[in-house]
Amino acid sequence: MIHEQDDITATDCIIAIRELLDANDSVGLNQFLHQLEDVERVRIVSRFPVEIQTAIVVALGGEQAAEVLHSLPIVQSSEILGELEPEVAVDVLKNFPMDEQADLISEISAEDQESILAIMDAADADAVRDLSDYDNDLAGGIMVVEYLSFEENETANGVINHLRENVEKYNDFDVQYAFVVKKDRTLIGVLRLRDLLLSSGSSQIGELMIKDPLSVSTETSLPDLHVIFTEHRFVGLPIVDSSEKLVGIVRRSDVESAMAEKFSTDLRRSQGVISEELRTMPLMLRSRRRLAWLSVNILLNIVAASVIAAYQDILTQVIALAVFLPIISDMSGCSGNQAVAVSMRELSLGLVKASEVLRVWLKELTVGLINGFALGLLVAFAAILWKGNPWLGIVIGMAMFVNTIIAVSIGGTLPLIMRGLKLDPALASGPILTTVTDMCGFFLVLSLASQFIDKLV
Amino acid sequence: MIHEQDDITATDCIIAIRELLDANDSVGLNQFLHQLEDVERVRIVSRFPVEIQTAIVVALGGEQAAEVLHSLPIVQSSEILGELEPEVAVDVLKNFPMDEQADLISEISAEDQESILAIMDAADADAVRDLSDYDNDLAGGIMVVEYLSFEENETANGVINHLRENVEKYNDFDVQYAFVVKKDRTLIGVLRLRDLLLSSGSSQIGELMIKDPLSVSTETSLPDLHVIFTEHRFVGLPIVDSSEKLVGIVRRSDVESAMAEKFSTDLRRSQGVISEELRTMPLMLRSRRRLAWLSVNILLNIVAASVIAAYQDILTQVIALAVFLPIISDMSGCSGNQAVAVSMRELSLGLVKASEVLRVWLKELTVGLINGFALGLLVAFAAILWKGNPWLGIVIGMAMFVNTIIAVSIGGTLPLIMRGLKLDPALASGPILTTVTDMCGFFLVLSLASQFIDKLV
Repeated sequence: MIHEQDDITATDCIIAIRELLDANDSVGLNQFLHQLEDVERVRIVSRFPVEIQTAIVVALGGEQAAEVLHSLPIVQSSEILGELEPEVAVDVLKNFPMDEQADLISEISAEDQESILAIMDAADADAVRDLSDYDNDLAGGIMVVEYLSFEENETANGVINHLRENVEKYNDFDVQYAFVVKKDRTLIGVLRLRDLLLSSGSSQIGELMIKDPLSVSTETSLPDLHVIFTEHRFVGLPIVDSSEKLVGIVRRSDVESAMAEKFSTDLRRSQGVISEELRTMPLMLRSRRRLAWLSVNILLNIVAASVIAAYQDILTQVIALAVFLPIISDMSGCSGNQAVAVSMRELSLGLVKASEVLRVWLKELTVGLINGFALGLLVAFAAILWKGNPWLGIVIGMAMFVNTIIAVSIGGTLPLIMRGLKLDPALASGPILTTVTDMCGFFLVLSLASQFIDKLV
Repeated sequence: MIHEQDDITATDCIIAIRELLDANDSVGLNQFLHQLEDVERVRIVSRFPVEIQTAIVVALGGEQAAEVLHSLPIVQSSEILGELEPEVAVDVLKNFPMDEQADLISEISAEDQESILAIMDAADADAVRDLSDYDNDLAGGIMVVEYLSFEENETANGVINHLRENVEKYNDFDVQYAFVVKKDRTLIGVLRLRDLLLSSGSSQIGELMIKDPLSVSTETSLPDLHVIFTEHRFVGLPIVDSSEKLVGIVRRSDVESAMAEKFSTDLRRSQGVISEELRTMPLMLRSRRRLAWLSVNILLNIVAASVIAAYQDILTQVIALAVFLPIISDMSGCSGNQAVAVSMRELSLGLVKASEVLRVWLKELTVGLINGFALGLLVAFAAILWKGNPWLGIVIGMAMFVNTIIAVSIGGTLPLIMRGLKLDPALASGPILTTVTDMCGFFLVLSLASQFIDKLV
């Protein structure tokens, strides 16, 4: 009911767009889309079914179509790309930088990929294939291949003239640096365009350039890139292959954007959304994707609960224990996840190495001792207050104490072990951690209770 | 035990740094620090106690000190800043861009802030004060105030000469665009340095500039900035105040970096780490910060468990229910958090507006019906298989079904409601959601069981 005005406008927009499509009025459509506010346009276009979205892209064609595709989430833009005729797809794609072409193409079916690559310019198709080979968490996977490079013996004037003659080509380049290479493309320097601008025209760029520039390899990991860009204020860094040849550049904004995407994905995964979901997707797909994760979880939950089932006789005798089981389960999960979060943070800031498992474990052990004691005391008091039986308090409190220590020990070290095994540390928090801490927690409460059963009944 | 070699090196580094400090050899110290790999240097320096870190900064002084501070997490660099003599602090700070000076200064005590600002250049101190006023999730909070601006009637040659004469000053500027303003600083155009480079020297910049450039206000929110930079390929955007006067620029990399930080913070919060924690912090501080959140959680858990306590007699009669309570609790939390994650994603991509609560609720309701039914069926089967009593299956299954619908309804809509109330949507997932779904889940299982108690015993 809030913003009723806006909602009417949104419906009007949708009707207007459909009318412009029916009338085949691509100029009018383009004008209409541009006149919308940026934040409104994405929202409106993203709501159309894929056929209409494809029709919009076809009607606009070329650069305008690329703008629309670029603004949509990649799950939608790649779906549209898959719907386009290969000729139209190539016409739209050529308005994207090579790395984004590779990202988009790698999301569509192998068959569609081949039909698009087949009619693409051969050199471009090769570049796209090369870029698709790199993982998105390596420098090679986020590098751009649109950059300026010159040989060291060229003069400042020569470079400026070259730039003048190729204004069109370089229009979308992020022109702030040019790279200086030998004939065989070995990187030897970086030339700031500003230094070029301020030089006398006859100087050779070999004299103007910054020598021995910092460079990274195609295999440098995203977290390492992030640390390097935090240490230095560079806007971009050259990327070289194993024989020191220049193959691309990685820009600060791309590293930051990849980190944002990584954290955002980690956040969603930790909340049980493993595959991208948008509410515009078909109901059954959304439901199935969520259910895939929930089913694994419920099975693990049943496994953990089987520990309780094994102690039914104890529970029947001391029914109060049943009240505390969900508390122990939830609190151990919390303590474990805190430790996971701190380890993931330290890993992403470069403050800890995968091999420092022992150091982290000792650091967690001390926190676990204190917090386990505090939490144990708290539930023990709650139990004694409620039932007036100190033995119930001792059993519940002890279980909470020990299980907190177990939870932080696993939670703190698991991300490092995962990183050491080249697995994603974000996988450490999640169903497995919870299941293990649940089983330990239930076992501790119930086996301790069975030890002191005569004091509890 | 892995990488033993590396660990010895790290210890050697620490000894070497302490020796260089004792010998007061700042040149040697600087050389030593530079010769370390980037990723190693952060890790080693971050491990020292704050007194040694401060000594390193004092020994290096000026630009080198700023480099070290810049590489550390802000909780550490601001702590060091607070330890420095005001004169040294100012000397180090002036190597940072204004916005980073503001970020650092706003982290230290009000008293230390004033003693630093008092001896700073007056104009700089004002700029720092202004920048500190903006929230970090608004354009004003992430803007930089180091940019080039010229009036429209200057010539290309005039601008180039000005740049030549001020090479030193502009050394750290991100010089790719210059902004064209009227005398009163009203923004009227953007000048690409490339167009300046390629122009004839006598043209007025009013002719070379791009007119009516896109600009954002100081109050533009971070998510809106993110959407705008996703829609357009700009490297930076000018920021104007309420009277269209140019006050700063916001760069793509800063927006991406702020988004990364936001997602990273959301991730940690969702895992119960509310305040920044590094394992180099004192044990009691780390323990207390985690415990603050755990204590809230345990109290809410006890509240939720009181629902179980109220139905002790039912539980005693049907002890099997106790096995399913933690399952219902955990699974409802999972389903609810999935819905939270999808809503937060859609909000951050600009695909949904805060006012569309009804739309989101209907979308979640359908998923909830399907997934609730599937999960309900699954636990029902498990219950029947285990106990052979179909009524137990019906009770557990029904409770799971209804509670899944409740969980996704709350989880999906809460982030939108939070955003509508200008609160952080990330707060929606967490103890409150879990407590509500726990209470509903326990109540559903136990009240249904009490309805069918004669069939269950």
